[in-house]
Amino acid sequence: MTIADRWLLPDGMDEVLPPQASRMEEVRRALLDLYYGWGYDQVMPPPVEFLDSLLTGTGTELELQTFKLTDQMTGRMMGASADVTPQVARMDAHSLKRQGPVRLCYCANVLRAKPDQYQAGRSPVQVGLELFGHAGLEADLEVLRLALTSLSVAGAREVHLALGHIGIYRSLVEAAELSADQERAVFKALELKSPGELASCVEYSVGDPLLAEMLRSLVTLHGGPEVLDEAREVFAEAPQAVGDALDQLRLLYQGVAAQHPEVEFYFDLAELRGYQYHTGMMFSAFVPGFGHALAKGGRYDDTGRAFGRARPATGFSLELKLLAGLAPSSRREGGIWAPAEGEGLAEAVRQLREQGERVVQALPGQCTGPEQHQCQRQLVRQAEGWRVTDLPSSEDPT
Amino acid sequence: MTIADRWLLPDGMDEVLPPQASRMEEVRRALLDLYYGWGYDQVMPPPVEFLDSLLTGTGTELELQTFKLTDQMTGRMMGASADVTPQVARMDAHSLKRQGPVRLCYCANVLRAKPDQYQAGRSPVQVGLELFGHAGLEADLEVLRLALTSLSVAGAREVHLALGHIGIYRSLVEAAELSADQERAVFKALELKSPGELASCVEYSVGDPLLAEMLRSLVTLHGGPEVLDEAREVFAEAPQAVGDALDQLRLLYQGVAAQHPEVEFYFDLAELRGYQYHTGMMFSAFVPGFGHALAKGGRYDDTGRAFGRARPATGFSLELKLLAGLAPSSRREGGIWAPAEGEGLAEAVRQLREQGERVVQALPGQCTGPEQHQCQRQLVRQAEGWRVTDLPSSEDPT
Repeated sequence: MTIADRWLLPDGMDEVLPPQASRMEEVRRALLDLYYGWGYDQVMPPPVEFLDSLLTGTGTELELQTFKLTDQMTGRMMGASADVTPQVARMDAHSLKRQGPVRLCYCANVLRAKPDQYQAGRSPVQVGLELFGHAGLEADLEVLRLALTSLSVAGAREVHLALGHIGIYRSLVEAAELSADQERAVFKALELKSPGELASCVEYSVGDPLLAEMLRSLVTLHGGPEVLDEAREVFAEAPQAVGDALDQLRLLYQGVAAQHPEVEFYFDLAELRGYQYHTGMMFSAFVPGFGHALAKGGRYDDTGRAFGRARPATGFSLELKLLAGLAPSSRREGGIWAPAEGEGLAEAVRQLREQGERVVQALPGQCTGPEQHQCQRQLVRQAEGWRVTDLPSSEDPT
Repeated sequence: MTIADRWLLPDGMDEVLPPQASRMEEVRRALLDLYYGWGYDQVMPPPVEFLDSLLTGTGTELELQTFKLTDQMTGRMMGASADVTPQVARMDAHSLKRQGPVRLCYCANVLRAKPDQYQAGRSPVQVGLELFGHAGLEADLEVLRLALTSLSVAGAREVHLALGHIGIYRSLVEAAELSADQERAVFKALELKSPGELASCVEYSVGDPLLAEMLRSLVTLHGGPEVLDEAREVFAEAPQAVGDALDQLRLLYQGVAAQHPEVEFYFDLAELRGYQYHTGMMFSAFVPGFGHALAKGGRYDDTGRAFGRARPATGFSLELKLLAGLAPSSRREGGIWAPAEGEGLAEAVRQLREQGERVVQALPGQCTGPEQHQCQRQLVRQAEGWRVTDLPSSEDPT
């Protein structure tokens, strides 16, 4: 094996160098502080769990994404966490067991066996929050507002918010009493956004002409807020749950728009992402220049069931590496270069650092100078003691 | 599989609940800020690498500790990082390739296949720093001071610092020209701190009576700073490198003692931890009440060699979960409880949060009150607008 080979990193398993790592730290702190201010308590899920716990109730997509490990101590299969949300749901259902609403937030490394089109490589840093124990729209609204505020804290100026509600599709399909095969065909046609394919599926499987028409129209119901009005007409005769879902979308829209005028709304009533998982509203937030959603979330009320306590749940997650790319660091650059030794130097350096200054001390005989260490000032001894001065510019011979 | 089974976590793979997680976050920030102030740049090593890169030049102990994973994309074996230090050495040697001293710090989750007597379980959070590119004692001293300051920042009041130098043993063994088997026997006797076993090994394998006496004496050379004087006499005729190592230990002792009067020193000249890895001074810092070292570090000048660029290197690491247990959180408790709705409420809540207050907003119909959400104050509407007041005590009927 040559030296060059040893340097290769697996695809999507990235190292983060300065100054990107410190920008990530900055955004991490801003987000966790934001969540703290809204009453969210931080948790740290285990990086590895037994596979059974990790994948309970999460669907096959997550299973394919999960790295498997053998526990040498028990011989049991374990998996590396590929998504923090189900872990946090377990912590709420089993470890905390609190009554009433529980607000939890996290920032954790996860691992993905395969690269995901929506994520940064196979080692994303997932930040997010979950609000358990409240089924009302107020909880969804709080979560949506926090997702948008997160993006703005990270530096996003323009945000496109895609909103959907899994209850619309689910109620129509239930009412149509489709077989599993028929439902799969309809689902696939909608995923492909293919009106032709959808029409032919519906024609063969849905007897009720009104329901057939509603299912067919799903594929066209996307666009700005006017889609909600259109849908109100199209679904006038639909099951009650469809109307409820539309009401919820409208209230979320009004609640968000009032406080986030910078947000552009996009509704997609045939959005099926996380169908096995979501139970209510779903959203993705996009920022121009980024090819994938920067925030994804929604309601998922059934996840805790496998742990003996199904609780209403709504939340979102973000990817820290992507977020850190939204804006440059706000950290003031400019360290102070200090000599290797001198009388009273240690005390002067200590005081500067206590004041929050960055002081880089030279090491005897080192070949690099202040510029290579991002220092624009220096600590020099003058008659009255140690003083911070500007560095002489390189053209200046004094 | 029963529900109870799904709740079990693998041994040593811990979840961290509130308020411990937020205390860890607090210590993490204090440490990274401290290192920033001394000129250390943050990096994030990849959580998974190809096994060859990960284990190059690190010895068999780390290999046994490393979880193995198959990369589905290439079929190659990968390993989860079990120790960040060699990864950071690679980043210095290969990715940064800077001239002169390079200061790097990190805070990263690592995974261990087996529990380690020195660590918190199998999922420690490793925080630490490395100073590359300077072989002088000044670099070791900077690192030692930062390790001790880290402990004090985390809340340690009393610290016991164990100092050793691998050069003493290494030089004596080289001078004695032992076979590999003989060296292994001597090493084992020293590890066991067994004077009897050591004496019998030395008797059979070391011809020179002076060297034999020196090797035998190693096992007794531990204790306070007076050990350095004793050693000076015992090793008066030893190879030059032994005297150099003793000089270094004395200078480190003086340099640290001058600035850290709270530290109690312990010297162990037969300390062999990390023998395959360390090349100079080594230290462990202990805090009463903790059964294992809270900080471990030392010099390791050869690690970068496998990556084509051996660089002098010295550094240390800490375990964040243990550190977080040193002192309680300094975060001010006491959120403000706000009602679910009201005219002008949203703006009042926004302003309070901007001022750094924690405001927990009630959700309609929730069954828990302010006490369950760590709120000691409340936001109420009065004639002049929204005001923060103390909560009425539960005995007070008004």
